[in-house]
Amino acid sequence: MRCEIVAVGTELLLGQIVDTNSTWIAERLVTLGIDCYFQTRVGDNLTRIEETLRLALERADAVIVCGGLGPTQDDITRQAIAKVMGVPLQRDPVLLAHIEAVFHQRGRPFTDNNAAQADVPVGAKPMATIVGTAPGLICPVGDKQIYALPGVPGEMREMFEADVLPDLQQRRGDAATIVSHTLYCWGPGESAIAARLASRLQALDVRGNPTIAFLASDFSGIRVRLTAKAADAKEARQLLEEEAREVRALLGDAVFSEGDDDPARHLPEAVVLRLLKERGQTLAVAESLTGGGIGARLTSVAGASRVFRGGIVAYASDVKFEMLSVPSGSVVTETAAAQMARGVCRALRADIGLAATGVAGPDSQENLPPGTVCVAVALGDDVTTRTLNLSGRSREQVRTLTATWLFDLLRRKITGLPV
Amino acid sequence: MRCEIVAVGTELLLGQIVDTNSTWIAERLVTLGIDCYFQTRVGDNLTRIEETLRLALERADAVIVCGGLGPTQDDITRQAIAKVMGVPLQRDPVLLAHIEAVFHQRGRPFTDNNAAQADVPVGAKPMATIVGTAPGLICPVGDKQIYALPGVPGEMREMFEADVLPDLQQRRGDAATIVSHTLYCWGPGESAIAARLASRLQALDVRGNPTIAFLASDFSGIRVRLTAKAADAKEARQLLEEEAREVRALLGDAVFSEGDDDPARHLPEAVVLRLLKERGQTLAVAESLTGGGIGARLTSVAGASRVFRGGIVAYASDVKFEMLSVPSGSVVTETAAAQMARGVCRALRADIGLAATGVAGPDSQENLPPGTVCVAVALGDDVTTRTLNLSGRSREQVRTLTATWLFDLLRRKITGLPV
Repeated sequence: MRCEIVAVGTELLLGQIVDTNSTWIAERLVTLGIDCYFQTRVGDNLTRIEETLRLALERADAVIVCGGLGPTQDDITRQAIAKVMGVPLQRDPVLLAHIEAVFHQRGRPFTDNNAAQADVPVGAKPMATIVGTAPGLICPVGDKQIYALPGVPGEMREMFEADVLPDLQQRRGDAATIVSHTLYCWGPGESAIAARLASRLQALDVRGNPTIAFLASDFSGIRVRLTAKAADAKEARQLLEEEAREVRALLGDAVFSEGDDDPARHLPEAVVLRLLKERGQTLAVAESLTGGGIGARLTSVAGASRVFRGGIVAYASDVKFEMLSVPSGSVVTETAAAQMARGVCRALRADIGLAATGVAGPDSQENLPPGTVCVAVALGDDVTTRTLNLSGRSREQVRTLTATWLFDLLRRKITGLPV
Repeated sequence: MRCEIVAVGTELLLGQIVDTNSTWIAERLVTLGIDCYFQTRVGDNLTRIEETLRLALERADAVIVCGGLGPTQDDITRQAIAKVMGVPLQRDPVLLAHIEAVFHQRGRPFTDNNAAQADVPVGAKPMATIVGTAPGLICPVGDKQIYALPGVPGEMREMFEADVLPDLQQRRGDAATIVSHTLYCWGPGESAIAARLASRLQALDVRGNPTIAFLASDFSGIRVRLTAKAADAKEARQLLEEEAREVRALLGDAVFSEGDDDPARHLPEAVVLRLLKERGQTLAVAESLTGGGIGARLTSVAGASRVFRGGIVAYASDVKFEMLSVPSGSVVTETAAAQMARGVCRALRADIGLAATGVAGPDSQENLPPGTVCVAVALGDDVTTRTLNLSGRSREQVRTLTATWLFDLLRRKITGLPV
């Protein structure tokens, strides 16, 4: 099965917003084993939306179109779809009542423009799930389909999962259930992960089910995603679990989290907060080159306050000496990092202290090249340090990678893994 | 003139990376007054790249294609262009020598694959600027052009500015010079800015030159961009300066920075660091709900160390009481914020202290709804405080907006504006 993605909105063509919807949908289609050869972005222009949808339908079995379902004059995706279907729009009374109820419930005024959101091309079916006020549409064109979704990312995603995905699976005559499981890894790079999994990649290449896909991110490591297909969910889960067992054994302690739920729950900062919460331990951070970024990442997780007490950002050297009792001299050493971790632990009365000091760049410092970073984890007086070489990276990458390495060192330390 | 953008790369279709190149180019085209009606993404497939380029050339006067110019087997954009042009590829000896020299200089091995990067469709012209190792190409097809650029954002942008932009202007028979000037604003929203500029918008609507465009960002405010066109640079600059004077008068102190250089230099954090550096003043930050994010933004600017001494992240209430001498009781008050700012100023011996305390959400705290935030700027004992209402925003938005509001309060305070 082949699917195309069309993003509608003049703001996309003006470069005012980045089209992350197409990226998200593309990734979901990969999981489902559906090919996508083209993605198109088009402005709020009836003729051009129609032309784009027609071309996409010619090349693919289904088209997912995002955006242009709102209440304003600019929102003309449903008109364009009606033209492609060769049918008029008709106001759907059930849908109208539903939208009115939503407005009433939120205490917002309901206008004629909003009523137009209940217009549906004759023959099309409103999606059951409505997250905002823009209903999604499933629109048959011959034996093909157009799925129309709103452009607001949160609404789009929820409606894709609830209505588009099951419909896509059913229409491709695939009674099979598809389930995924992701292993989140840190440490080895993508090629090293591939080398470790060589035997599985070979075996699965022959069998074709489950499949393995890699997704790399500088920020949070490599995601290894297993996807299995079977007649029912139980069988699919079983296939997946068998494969996960094999893969887990090969990847060992590079895997820092696993699951098939929201990837945000598996960010390194979320994982260490969970581990510490389970253990009833508190955390404080002493930061130099990251300037507060480690604390910012930890506190981006809602509920961080049960674990995270705070920190000291010792950007100037004399702040390190005075507030963290770092001995005067070089501040990019493992000794300095160790003392920072110990010092912040004491100053904020936390169980565990983290520290990072180093050269973010672009200039050298203390004759050390950008990317030279020392980190430390202190559990009271038990301190582990490491020197990282992150040369060849930008200032922002050095800072981001420092935080992730430190979270991984912490995970290893508190779970008793070799550091 | 009409231009289309084509992004090449299977990784885009797999959802592995977000296509920010098309967004960036789209924004540049708007500045130049060039229309863009479609953007397409296509994988590393010869037939489909060729098909996409042909369609784009049918609809537009010029096509900008990014990606697929690298040294690997997957990089086939130049082959696809040769097919569209109906010509063979020919190795360009001058280009080859240049690429070899770059490899030699960087001490990297030079392979046959790299030599293939010197292959040019007969009749096409390599761009003069080569940033990485992938040369850009200007490829005539009848009276239209394909501009091929590498997919690496930094390389793409530099080559676009140096080679594509002047060529586009020249080819559209436009001897005119186009110059831009951006006013960076914080405070009023987009509609309020538009209301203030109503008289100018009306006047320019009639004259058509210069033009005004708005770009909104939650993170750093509204950018008002003026673009003027004239026979030569001097005349264009003069037009621009006259208009900037009018606009500046209407916007008043909402403008926190101006320029036509790198927007990163005009982020609120970069602007306040510059102002403090000029004044020889140092800064420290006391953070609660932002968890270190204010410091992280300040230190994302290279050279921040001349101004920024560091900070105290007082996430837990008792850390505020003990380390910043906040009086016990409610910690989401202007009194608490003032004491945090004063406290961090003293503890880190800085000239100026900033502080933020509040409810990031998603849950309420001290019976205050998410988005309730108190901020303070302390110049020694001279403290200014404010309570922000950022309700209806996500946790991340509340944290980001808090930092930007605080930077703006600091700017107003140190430049003697009303706060």
